[in-house]
Amino acid sequence: MPKIPDATRIVRNVHYSNPSFLNLTPKVQFPAVTNADLFRPALSKMLPYAPGEQPPPGTGVKLNTNENPYPPPPAVVEAIRAAAGGPLNRYPDPMANSFRVAAAKALGMPGPEWILAGNGSDEILTLLVRGFVGEGQRLRLPYPSYILYRTLADIQGAGWEQVPFEDDWKLPAAFGKSDDDLRLVLLPNPNSPSGTIVPPDQIAAIADSLDCPLVVDEAYVDFAETNCLDLVQKNERVFVTRTLSKSYGLAGLRFGFLVAQPHMVAELTKIKDSYNCDAIAIAAATAAMGCQDWLADIKTKMNATRAVLETRLAQMGFHVTPSHANFVWCQHPTGNHQSIYEFLKQQQILIRYMQFPDWGDGLRISVGTDDQIETCLSAIERALKL
Amino acid sequence: MPKIPDATRIVRNVHYSNPSFLNLTPKVQFPAVTNADLFRPALSKMLPYAPGEQPPPGTGVKLNTNENPYPPPPAVVEAIRAAAGGPLNRYPDPMANSFRVAAAKALGMPGPEWILAGNGSDEILTLLVRGFVGEGQRLRLPYPSYILYRTLADIQGAGWEQVPFEDDWKLPAAFGKSDDDLRLVLLPNPNSPSGTIVPPDQIAAIADSLDCPLVVDEAYVDFAETNCLDLVQKNERVFVTRTLSKSYGLAGLRFGFLVAQPHMVAELTKIKDSYNCDAIAIAAATAAMGCQDWLADIKTKMNATRAVLETRLAQMGFHVTPSHANFVWCQHPTGNHQSIYEFLKQQQILIRYMQFPDWGDGLRISVGTDDQIETCLSAIERALKL
Repeated sequence: MPKIPDATRIVRNVHYSNPSFLNLTPKVQFPAVTNADLFRPALSKMLPYAPGEQPPPGTGVKLNTNENPYPPPPAVVEAIRAAAGGPLNRYPDPMANSFRVAAAKALGMPGPEWILAGNGSDEILTLLVRGFVGEGQRLRLPYPSYILYRTLADIQGAGWEQVPFEDDWKLPAAFGKSDDDLRLVLLPNPNSPSGTIVPPDQIAAIADSLDCPLVVDEAYVDFAETNCLDLVQKNERVFVTRTLSKSYGLAGLRFGFLVAQPHMVAELTKIKDSYNCDAIAIAAATAAMGCQDWLADIKTKMNATRAVLETRLAQMGFHVTPSHANFVWCQHPTGNHQSIYEFLKQQQILIRYMQFPDWGDGLRISVGTDDQIETCLSAIERALKL
Repeated sequence: MPKIPDATRIVRNVHYSNPSFLNLTPKVQFPAVTNADLFRPALSKMLPYAPGEQPPPGTGVKLNTNENPYPPPPAVVEAIRAAAGGPLNRYPDPMANSFRVAAAKALGMPGPEWILAGNGSDEILTLLVRGFVGEGQRLRLPYPSYILYRTLADIQGAGWEQVPFEDDWKLPAAFGKSDDDLRLVLLPNPNSPSGTIVPPDQIAAIADSLDCPLVVDEAYVDFAETNCLDLVQKNERVFVTRTLSKSYGLAGLRFGFLVAQPHMVAELTKIKDSYNCDAIAIAAATAAMGCQDWLADIKTKMNATRAVLETRLAQMGFHVTPSHANFVWCQHPTGNHQSIYEFLKQQQILIRYMQFPDWGDGLRISVGTDDQIETCLSAIERALKL
């Protein structure tokens, strides 16, 4: 069972001396900077965010970064091939308007001016932090959740504070409390690593109690039953971010977007690079928005696999957190999470071992194909017998 | 003839009330922000950078944004089509290592660790400003040159100062003078709008006299005879940026890169989004680096067209600045630049009318195909007779 800390204890800007606690393998070595004082002091002090391990494609079973195990819709691949023959020597549409029109329609938003396209939702999150949080100000995130938000604060020379989730992954009242230096609150919903979701009415209440903008990061929402798009129409301080990386099987394409009120979209446009999305990605993402039936089928298929994964892990004695995303968070009474992770890795099965200081550790397993999940579960069974 | 101001007069952070002086047509309207105090004050004050006009592809003659009139190398298009069938559901290589290896080889750099790939050189410039210039600090650029650098300073809440070029587009000594708040100097070389180039030995001297990093923006260098790659190896404070948008005919792809000493590349990697380049762009850019013969041919062909453009404009009475880039800057004694621009626009021929406050105005014409340049020149001849 997870060790849940006192929800009133908020952790601020702890700088860890070693990123290995997150089981991250930086791809780049960071040699000593001989002239570190050329850089902004905020950078010299900070550690980089390191993405999950990325072995060469086709090796083993990869269930560590919540990618879709299935290829994207065929219409997307066709759109890419068609765009390859287009006028690549010309700059793309700076606003990706074809995508915005298609996304607004697919999501039932009033119009394209409610959408801002980005080079992955990472870029959108970067724009939001750059837009709202200055040096010496602060952003807030729940804990445990998406560590990247802290990195984005560090880059700005800003502070961050982590508000621990309560038992059963509910948000404490402290999460909606305002103060002058607090300029942005970020909430992954569904959350990672837990896969849990906070209902829209609770998020509406948090947004109302905050003076600053609230970003609801809906990277995994296509696998859930609720979302916060309605809140965006009701409250100009609610911003929803989405990505095509997970549900649409397009992690390789780098395409994400923001849903926000039009005057907020316009203001954030000032910060983005002029041509932040390329012509091929725009064509592909536009095509993806037309594949809502495909998306519904993928959701049905992957959520069925998720149910099998949850049931089998529970049968093996794991405490399984019911998931609304394309991954499952589980903890075993033996606490041997790291050794299970390493046993699987030896067999080229990659899952995520995550250890959160002052909280606990566990395993996050992405929903793969039925075959991949069967391979993974069998290996875990063998690991538990060791 | 251009009006050259006193080179010692440095303009700092003038905020213009209207971006129309640059003949820019913002694609997005900026409605009043009802809750502007949510944003960082630096943003609320600033005007957006607006890219050049982008009419629908295939309409008229487009010579306003220095795109390559020719399609990219066939090998690049093939690489995109092949990558469309690749594992798009998987995240791309965070460091784009295949590209880094190919670029280091093509440029004769010691190894891939000297290269940082970006989503256009715009992203690289953004990273450099975010890396070196904090709130209340300052960057420097020559004048007239690339207005984007000022926007990047504005976004940071930083200042900027413009040091005017001397007669004949030489850099004054003031350009290499250091002070504590000056954290970054940016030099487009070849410069826009002039197309002029500062020789590497003069840039070496400027870099030596500065305490802060010097960014040499070589977006147009593939059309010139010198570059500053050697300086990067000699001085850790020299950073060269490149793009595939111009010479490789890939403006639609969004791919640029930084050449810098490895420890500088590593430090800047901390700021970039984890997966800043997508799998298809990486494949395309890697293929482009293998097309050095194609590049040499394009340079020969376009520089020949440029010579025709320069000669004919001079015959019409224009003062033509000798160009080392894929565009030509020209000024007519009549001073009727804006009316020439508008006459051409009525005939769907887009060139760039640029007016620089306290300096003067003129026309910047991108090097197109021979046919496009002939069409453009004929129209200018007619305009001059009006």
